[in-house]
Amino acid sequence: MAMRRAAAVIGARALNSTRDSCPSLLSRDLHASPGSKKIVGVFYKANEYAAMNPNFLGCAENALGIREWLESQGHQYIVTDDKDGPDCELDKHIPDLHVLISTPFHPAYVTAERIKRAKNLQLLLTAGIGSDHVDLKAAAEAGLTVAEVTGSNTVSVAEDELMRILILVRNFVPGHHQVINGEWNVAAIAHRAYDLEGKTVGTVGAGRIGRLLLQRLKPFNCNLLYHDRLKMDPELEKEIGAKFEEDVDKMLPKCDIVVINMPLTEKTKGMFNKERIAKLKKGVLIVNNARGAIMDTQAVVDACSSGHIAGYSGDVWNPQPAPKDHPWRYMPNQAMTPHTSGTTIDAQLRYAAGTKDMLERYFKGEEFPAQNYIVKEGQLASQYR
Amino acid sequence: MAMRRAAAVIGARALNSTRDSCPSLLSRDLHASPGSKKIVGVFYKANEYAAMNPNFLGCAENALGIREWLESQGHQYIVTDDKDGPDCELDKHIPDLHVLISTPFHPAYVTAERIKRAKNLQLLLTAGIGSDHVDLKAAAEAGLTVAEVTGSNTVSVAEDELMRILILVRNFVPGHHQVINGEWNVAAIAHRAYDLEGKTVGTVGAGRIGRLLLQRLKPFNCNLLYHDRLKMDPELEKEIGAKFEEDVDKMLPKCDIVVINMPLTEKTKGMFNKERIAKLKKGVLIVNNARGAIMDTQAVVDACSSGHIAGYSGDVWNPQPAPKDHPWRYMPNQAMTPHTSGTTIDAQLRYAAGTKDMLERYFKGEEFPAQNYIVKEGQLASQYR
Repeated sequence: MAMRRAAAVIGARALNSTRDSCPSLLSRDLHASPGSKKIVGVFYKANEYAAMNPNFLGCAENALGIREWLESQGHQYIVTDDKDGPDCELDKHIPDLHVLISTPFHPAYVTAERIKRAKNLQLLLTAGIGSDHVDLKAAAEAGLTVAEVTGSNTVSVAEDELMRILILVRNFVPGHHQVINGEWNVAAIAHRAYDLEGKTVGTVGAGRIGRLLLQRLKPFNCNLLYHDRLKMDPELEKEIGAKFEEDVDKMLPKCDIVVINMPLTEKTKGMFNKERIAKLKKGVLIVNNARGAIMDTQAVVDACSSGHIAGYSGDVWNPQPAPKDHPWRYMPNQAMTPHTSGTTIDAQLRYAAGTKDMLERYFKGEEFPAQNYIVKEGQLASQYR
Repeated sequence: MAMRRAAAVIGARALNSTRDSCPSLLSRDLHASPGSKKIVGVFYKANEYAAMNPNFLGCAENALGIREWLESQGHQYIVTDDKDGPDCELDKHIPDLHVLISTPFHPAYVTAERIKRAKNLQLLLTAGIGSDHVDLKAAAEAGLTVAEVTGSNTVSVAEDELMRILILVRNFVPGHHQVINGEWNVAAIAHRAYDLEGKTVGTVGAGRIGRLLLQRLKPFNCNLLYHDRLKMDPELEKEIGAKFEEDVDKMLPKCDIVVINMPLTEKTKGMFNKERIAKLKKGVLIVNNARGAIMDTQAVVDACSSGHIAGYSGDVWNPQPAPKDHPWRYMPNQAMTPHTSGTTIDAQLRYAAGTKDMLERYFKGEEFPAQNYIVKEGQLASQYR
């Protein structure tokens, strides 16, 4: 029975009450094979770059550095970057894989339809943070376990957010373009370049990444605001020097710079639509390394074009890879990159180690670190509810 | 007599002993006119950008916002961006100007020859920080006063340096180019993108800007080193968490990231030549917002091309504006901009106010704030000696 897949895998306790609410599962007769597993990894391909750095573990070629270890234990390890479309390599393995590992940087979109076809699937691992590429409700209903390497790249993303804040505040991109285009026009940059000092920065979401960002912002002498479901511990709040804003819509109009630090959920999807953007300060700067779909794509384009948003920077897109004609590539005042902030070499070392650790526990039937679970025994982690 | 120019202007004490060491001055018969002054400002031109921001005071059109104030007191205020070549606008005014105001962003190069021709010149003001565009020795010998608005843009430059560190560590520029070129290749970025956390950052020079940078780096959990003429006060050193390195050549090979925070002087000119760069770690990242001439231009190009320097970012060039064929525009792994880090809108407001304050004191025969003097009564400020 589907719910048993997860329970068996993670050595969990008796099935919980969600079983009865998932009648669709009762028709499925799924049994995990007890020994050798088929594990599929979906990572971005590196081609000529794969061999350039011995610690470059996150690409398809180096495959988290766990191939030898897995194969020596008799498991099968298929790795691909070909993840979309009806004839893709991933789809060929859906019917018989036990474990699917993917990353937010080159996400294997695990739809309800794929879950339905994946009769042997037990475990979905995100090498990194953010499992919204999985239909979590469908995964919960199918009794799958979804887990990520919580904390593995929080520092990486927080550092990158601070870089993007400064890039927008300083108007870096047009300055650099002048250099490579043989130009020199200080005024064209300086008339809209500012110090970060003294500005109001608000983070929507102050979980692990948001807090690391606020800590790094502290010496810049800004006015720091945060919105979250929960107020921080008063001592931590004092140490960080940020003010809690219970109502996000009361916080946003105060901000010179807005940073998005929420997971993508049903509630946050399209949260920054035309109406909400219109309520932001004219000339606001927005940094979003969270997820592209939190923004209404066209509303961002329109506000950057009108100047209401004076700068937008992030590394997340909807979908990924961003198609050649994605309008964020061509809108004014953007400082975008592909999705890379959480896949530094340092982060890769951490999430490769964390993925290996969870696989090891999975093979032994042991629990994962509690903070890593996104779906466990039919329940979504609190941030996704 | 030339030495009296400064002394009269700033209400200073009796002429000091340097007078006798400057016999060349004795042949000059220069007397400041007691009333109306001719003040020339050299700033970058803004054209269509001049009207886009009411606080954009640093451009030629807005001329620090002091025109009305100066003219209402009967002074003449000539402003130009035309500063180089034998027929430039600046040269026309050299023979009879009393005060020359310039900036490091669009420097009026005040050579010994110009000083010789400037029979009425008394005061050279830098709206900003860094007066190396002036031949300071010649200015001292001619009895001129040179002063800048110390502290006016230290925060601006320190913030910008941290941005550049992150841009290099994260490999931002190639990522952004992918976006605008319609590409998506995470591996091409990620194989050489790192976290800043845990890396060794050394600043060569820990004066006002270097210290502000170190303070902002503290929460990033780096290994912080600094070289300076002077060790910091132990309490400040502890607060900042940086380790003093007396010998710069012992510090440099330890650094993953080197930041230049020294003035350009006879001693620092060309300090980073081929030999010194060869002693840096392979793959070092260099940030230089100090002055371009501290580096040997071609040595930087060669080391960036070979990969010995893995990234070079700064906003200072030799000369400025950088010519179209300056090789730093075209070398690999550069994240350069025109000279803008110290001319944010916030900095402009501060250095415009500081310049006005010094002019006001000059008209009244009052002393400037002590830290503003670069040349006073024939003596160079300590950092330029």
